[in-house]
Amino acid sequence: MDIKETAIRIAKRAMSASPTIRTANTKLKNNVLQLIAEKIEQKKSEVLKENEKDIEIAVKNKLSKALIDRLSLNDKKIQLMIESVHQVIMLTDPVGEIFDMRTRPNGLKIGRMRVPIGVIFIIYESRPNVTIESAILCIKSGNTAILRGGKESMNTNRILSEIIRESLNEAGLPKDGLIFVDSTDRELVQELLLLENYINLVIPRGGESLIRAVAEKSRIPVIKHYKGICHIYVDKDADESKALELCLNAKCQRPATCNAMETLLVHKDLSKSFLPKMVDKFISSGVELRGCPKTRKLFPNISRATEEDWHTEYLDLILSVKIVENLEEAIDHIEKYGSHHSDGIITENYTTAWVFVNSVDSAACYVNASTRFTDGFEFGLGAEVGISTDKIHCRGPMGLLELTVPKWIIFGNGQVRE
Amino acid sequence: MDIKETAIRIAKRAMSASPTIRTANTKLKNNVLQLIAEKIEQKKSEVLKENEKDIEIAVKNKLSKALIDRLSLNDKKIQLMIESVHQVIMLTDPVGEIFDMRTRPNGLKIGRMRVPIGVIFIIYESRPNVTIESAILCIKSGNTAILRGGKESMNTNRILSEIIRESLNEAGLPKDGLIFVDSTDRELVQELLLLENYINLVIPRGGESLIRAVAEKSRIPVIKHYKGICHIYVDKDADESKALELCLNAKCQRPATCNAMETLLVHKDLSKSFLPKMVDKFISSGVELRGCPKTRKLFPNISRATEEDWHTEYLDLILSVKIVENLEEAIDHIEKYGSHHSDGIITENYTTAWVFVNSVDSAACYVNASTRFTDGFEFGLGAEVGISTDKIHCRGPMGLLELTVPKWIIFGNGQVRE
Repeated sequence: MDIKETAIRIAKRAMSASPTIRTANTKLKNNVLQLIAEKIEQKKSEVLKENEKDIEIAVKNKLSKALIDRLSLNDKKIQLMIESVHQVIMLTDPVGEIFDMRTRPNGLKIGRMRVPIGVIFIIYESRPNVTIESAILCIKSGNTAILRGGKESMNTNRILSEIIRESLNEAGLPKDGLIFVDSTDRELVQELLLLENYINLVIPRGGESLIRAVAEKSRIPVIKHYKGICHIYVDKDADESKALELCLNAKCQRPATCNAMETLLVHKDLSKSFLPKMVDKFISSGVELRGCPKTRKLFPNISRATEEDWHTEYLDLILSVKIVENLEEAIDHIEKYGSHHSDGIITENYTTAWVFVNSVDSAACYVNASTRFTDGFEFGLGAEVGISTDKIHCRGPMGLLELTVPKWIIFGNGQVRE
Repeated sequence: MDIKETAIRIAKRAMSASPTIRTANTKLKNNVLQLIAEKIEQKKSEVLKENEKDIEIAVKNKLSKALIDRLSLNDKKIQLMIESVHQVIMLTDPVGEIFDMRTRPNGLKIGRMRVPIGVIFIIYESRPNVTIESAILCIKSGNTAILRGGKESMNTNRILSEIIRESLNEAGLPKDGLIFVDSTDRELVQELLLLENYINLVIPRGGESLIRAVAEKSRIPVIKHYKGICHIYVDKDADESKALELCLNAKCQRPATCNAMETLLVHKDLSKSFLPKMVDKFISSGVELRGCPKTRKLFPNISRATEEDWHTEYLDLILSVKIVENLEEAIDHIEKYGSHHSDGIITENYTTAWVFVNSVDSAACYVNASTRFTDGFEFGLGAEVGISTDKIHCRGPMGLLELTVPKWIIFGNGQVRE
């Protein structure tokens, strides 16, 4: 069988499971999730054994420590997986919600009803817990998932997918409600991306190059985020101690994530009070600073931030710093250089806070909190199937609601159009 | 200036107007709409004069009568345009709506706020009222529109766009809140479709070939509908007189539209009672019928419906007819051959009606009403900027709500991530 045929066969299997998965009731879907949680617990040692295989291959192939960390499971990580399943069981099922139901002048009752998207193709890199997170959110929201994980965690993903498929089957739903692409062939992915008549949405999760490659090849709608160039603006009315702690957290708590701060904007009035303390704190935390001309005048040891710096997602302990005249300049900077991911303001001024929230066009707009919270679990979604910096369908972390779409339902008693 | 530069210049103008349009309050936006309505009234004779030019060219180029009808304006059509503007003024502005605001265990207040999409590129064919409908819905929802109409209505579209731009200007908003692409150059459209960093959404409106060409070329997300293969299923518990009238309306009232019925599905129990009357009605209305084997056994004069017929959007007085065993067969047929546009059931049975509405995966699911109602104006949206048969963002007619997307807003008091 050639690759095109393999792709079509996978897509057709997903498509034929879809009507049953789409219309399954909440109880049935929660049963599947409950079984998944139980089976992960029961088969923990098997899962860890498969994960060992992946780690061995990774070590042999001399992958970076960071990458090996990401793909490694342990008791604690498995416990978090199970907790995430329980969280999603507790969440309200958005499918079937009916809203905006109105009676038109001709008596027609017209409203919108939330329904699943259909078949979703998720392409991701090394973390095997993405397999569980994607599957449970898709199943609970009535979507059929085709999962294609990174080759580094192939063995772990395979056993986790088997657990999910067994759970679907035991609960009385089609196994093909989840399909694991058990192949590392890139051509197969490319063929799947052409099947717009079978697959309704593609979600790529991973580095920018993976996402760009998917977006360029896909004939199916893609929801994605390329990068997170996140800003915090410390306003003249900021509470200094909050600002110090929040900025440090946003930069340093996990600098390699997309929601870490990459640029600090500081109101000029704070350049001699707050800024020196902040600079000290960053330097003693090992952060390399790159400053605008005004910043460098005050701190000559800081290197120059080039035009390119403002556009850069460092994903590292590097931070660009700019002193701004006012709120407007901060907002303009975010609009010009940001990636519309997560941006925050630190201020005690009520009006300033609202102007920021209304004006900044980012997926997540923060007041007095670390940008590091942009995450499905932290937002109360139980997990996430990706983050969108696109401007349609949804923005930010994608949870159950974001995996649905409203259709129209119309109840008449014989109305015809004149 | 080459075409690529022209495209970038257009997109940049739109992008720089966008922050002001996006954050304009409802009163300001309604002022623009009010001015548009007044100016259309005031400049009616000029508009009609420009429209005359288009008609003359169309007659000279021997366009079809149907096409000339579509691009022709008259007093009544202009009055309907103005009425449509007033309707949209009356509608609730969805921008700024905050929902699902929750307090997380750590005290963070997290919710979703509806915001405009940004810059929308609308590509359409001959009807000049699309210029007004698109513009007023985009403006009211805080979106900046780039309009590229059909070359047949170039003169009419130009003067209508000038009216809109003047109105924006007089209300104190940037003129470039609406940009009219005053060119028939197809290459320019193709260059615009590549500008994903400036334009957030493309909506093509028109024939299937136009839409396919746009979807293939675009690097920007596209919301579209290719075709409408709409079904009505007449259930065994249907009210016969309603069924006769509804089916006739759905097929004949305007057969060239995407929401007209293309396939009639009839429960076998009605094949000797309802069906003969329905067949008579269709034949005496000039409808050509194409039937399944069971239908042809009862009505030997009806020609055979081929496999291709079930897949065909006739857009004409042709209808394929199938006798089905039960509700399930009807739903399966719609799932297999339909285009997920508008599909209806005629039944007096409560349970059957709900099973249909829950199971049929179409943008608009009808009970006891003509599918011809799938239209922004009829649904109470004032107008529409297109219809989606995609499965993400929105389905069916796109009004104000569908031109927005929720972003996340987060209010903290110093929360950091552990």
